[in-house]
Amino acid sequence: MQNTPKEWSLIERIRYRVQRQNDHTKVPLGDDAFVFRNYPGYSVICQDMMVEGVHFELDYFSAFDLGYKSLAVNLSDIAAMGALPHFAQVSLALPKKLNESWLDDFYKGMTSLADDHHMQVVGGDLAASPDRLVVDVSVHGSCENPLTRKGAKPGDLLLCSGPLGLSFTGMTALQKKLSGFDDAKERHLRPKPRLDLVASLQKQHTRIHALMDCSDGLVNDALQLRPPNGGFHLFAENLPLHPDSESLAVDLHLNPQDFVLWGGEDYELLMAVHPEDYEYFPEWKMIGQFTEDPRVFVSHPDHHEEIKEFKGWKHFPG
Amino acid sequence: MQNTPKEWSLIERIRYRVQRQNDHTKVPLGDDAFVFRNYPGYSVICQDMMVEGVHFELDYFSAFDLGYKSLAVNLSDIAAMGALPHFAQVSLALPKKLNESWLDDFYKGMTSLADDHHMQVVGGDLAASPDRLVVDVSVHGSCENPLTRKGAKPGDLLLCSGPLGLSFTGMTALQKKLSGFDDAKERHLRPKPRLDLVASLQKQHTRIHALMDCSDGLVNDALQLRPPNGGFHLFAENLPLHPDSESLAVDLHLNPQDFVLWGGEDYELLMAVHPEDYEYFPEWKMIGQFTEDPRVFVSHPDHHEEIKEFKGWKHFPG
Repeated sequence: MQNTPKEWSLIERIRYRVQRQNDHTKVPLGDDAFVFRNYPGYSVICQDMMVEGVHFELDYFSAFDLGYKSLAVNLSDIAAMGALPHFAQVSLALPKKLNESWLDDFYKGMTSLADDHHMQVVGGDLAASPDRLVVDVSVHGSCENPLTRKGAKPGDLLLCSGPLGLSFTGMTALQKKLSGFDDAKERHLRPKPRLDLVASLQKQHTRIHALMDCSDGLVNDALQLRPPNGGFHLFAENLPLHPDSESLAVDLHLNPQDFVLWGGEDYELLMAVHPEDYEYFPEWKMIGQFTEDPRVFVSHPDHHEEIKEFKGWKHFPG
Repeated sequence: MQNTPKEWSLIERIRYRVQRQNDHTKVPLGDDAFVFRNYPGYSVICQDMMVEGVHFELDYFSAFDLGYKSLAVNLSDIAAMGALPHFAQVSLALPKKLNESWLDDFYKGMTSLADDHHMQVVGGDLAASPDRLVVDVSVHGSCENPLTRKGAKPGDLLLCSGPLGLSFTGMTALQKKLSGFDDAKERHLRPKPRLDLVASLQKQHTRIHALMDCSDGLVNDALQLRPPNGGFHLFAENLPLHPDSESLAVDLHLNPQDFVLWGGEDYELLMAVHPEDYEYFPEWKMIGQFTEDPRVFVSHPDHHEEIKEFKGWKHFPG
């Protein structure tokens, strides 16, 4: 889109902050488009948008954290394909209330995560926004063997890479201005995409029937991962609760299980594997099993609780 | 980002509308990310955002036109590298006032342009917006020889692929609800990215010193293309005016030259070539020449008019 001298000076400022080059760069940031030499294997691309007042509020999201998280949610999608990221493009619709130092901190947060993963911010767009801040990030990565959501079979175990419901716990603590809950707040503000698992996922790729990241709450995500026309049981005693979630649930007189079932944005990975292959994934938690039966249950030691009403996650009221 | 059942149903609807596959598709739309087999040559990526009330108004932009244009502006960046497009991702921050049939028409407009260029819409995101519509599109393409903005030399001619100021003419006619000016309105609503020129640009790539697309107005764009510390003359008698612009200028008692110098969003291409190579580009208009002198002039037969004040294009007031 067209830019003005004011935009040019902001773009120069951003360029100075993000510019890095590697062996694959052919035409760096600053031309009509970014050009690079392909990586081996397949290309993997994703794109994810965050809107002020819908996905975040600026009273508890610092510029640094928002820069970090808007990239992190995309890197989680890359990890969920068993891929590694190389390049990100960032578009910002920027309201006047946010000044240049806010913008500096936003890119500091984003490049801090990008640097952790040896990737670069290479383009995007900057636009004025009359009111809300909107951040949209696309990422380009690559992998040898893509790991998809499709392929879970009845009888497969449902494995999870870490605690769920923790981001929701953090968001609630932030919104209610509660002190403590530091792990939960950090999970909500600066979720860690599970790129650390990619090398081992690629090594075991023939054993992985299906893989995805957990961003919409466990029930909604497992519905995406289930076998065609199938369902699943979740094992109540194995649900991956974090102490912060249990503690917040006590304080607020809520059922912590709901945090896991319906809280989104944890960005852990979910996997379907044959029960005999569970031993190859010792660090993953076994939290459920897929079934031919299309119903969805939470299984307790003495009873099965059927889930009939599928609650949406909070970001699309109406 | 997390999605809700409402978003899922909209996403299904979009998927149905855009889904196409080709030989390069490895994992289609609908997984955590889109996966494809690389194209020969270099990869080319760009991303461009449009914000309601800043880049367009919905009272004169139909859903179809907006879908078309939000892709077109990106394809223009791809053409400006001498590349061809393969895949687009689209993020929408969607206010409640826009219903599902609006969304259908938006994707009809986008896929109509995508189909013209044998490319696919393969992903993106959908978010609620509390107020404004925001559209952000990223495109992945490829090329054998990238053609960059850098490389113009003093003495090089400045060539242009078609009329400039026409989009500004159309926007003005639309905003003032004037009848007629059909070419100009079409240029503003559905600009044609000059992908038709890419094959010949690649063929002549050794003769092209610098190339870019014209989106910010001729003066601002030529400032990007000029040699380091250099300037340029624009030839007043050769400025690529369209009859619609001349006619609107008469109606509104304006100088049509200003439309060319400062009106943006035409998405024609600008090129710098050695004067001896002009003969290889017979369909391009010779509109200026780069100089060692850093000043900028509009050259008339009998005098040189120096441009000292650089007016911004309209989209970033303040």
